[in-house]
Amino acid sequence: MTITPVTICLPIADRRTSFRFYRDGLAFEPVGEVADDGVPEPLQFALNEGVRLMLIPTGGFGWVIGDRNVASRGISECVLDLPAETDGAVDAFLERAHRAGAEIVSGAGRQPWGYGGTFADPDGHLWMVTSQEKHAG
Amino acid sequence: MTITPVTICLPIADRRTSFRFYRDGLAFEPVGEVADDGVPEPLQFALNEGVRLMLIPTGGFGWVIGDRNVASRGISECVLDLPAETDGAVDAFLERAHRAGAEIVSGAGRQPWGYGGTFADPDGHLWMVTSQEKHAG
Repeated sequence: MTITPVTICLPIADRRTSFRFYRDGLAFEPVGEVADDGVPEPLQFALNEGVRLMLIPTGGFGWVIGDRNVASRGISECVLDLPAETDGAVDAFLERAHRAGAEIVSGAGRQPWGYGGTFADPDGHLWMVTSQEKHAG
Repeated sequence: MTITPVTICLPIADRRTSFRFYRDGLAFEPVGEVADDGVPEPLQFALNEGVRLMLIPTGGFGWVIGDRNVASRGISECVLDLPAETDGAVDAFLERAHRAGAEIVSGAGRQPWGYGGTFADPDGHLWMVTSQEKHAG
């Protein structure tokens, strides 16, 4: 079964902060109609043709999840992994995220699954960047 | 910027339980080499060409997230949304999830964003199914 597109919904504190971080900082592609605050509503980014990221203010997110509680900062239920073509591209992406204000959770290095690193977005959501470069040995 | 594929990593309690739920229950497409326990290692499903779901035993997941804590059941940081072509397809998908053992968190109904419903996987991770059907009015 193929399902397209899948939308990953995450709770956020502030739409403008998230918009700036993902669009200006990470160069993610926003989609949808812009609302009065200059930010698309809902705030979505197309990561590729098969997946979108939707960032929902915490109150609305809490409404969606019913009797569940919204995870507070520092509590992780998911990690989103992005491939990078080379080890150098991992370094460049983490540097870009850092300049955009991300917290670098683990700097780029050799891990059991490859060369990569992890950063947190303005709400503490974790992203990994992992090199697809093949190394001899 | 287009990034493919994005991998959504979630913590799980038991590889076999998750494998059965997603492969046999939801008919998701597993990818990767099968390990001695008969389950791919790592346990991944290709949802479409642009996104994979990776299910990681909680211990390993905790290692990945560093000084963060793994969300316990009932604490939600993310909701994954799947499109369905019609309202009837939403009903059918939720029924399939229910038969596979999912908890139905909110039965299918008309929501501000469309006709849909929400279920929880064996570890409490939330999925929404949302109809793409256009209604007059």
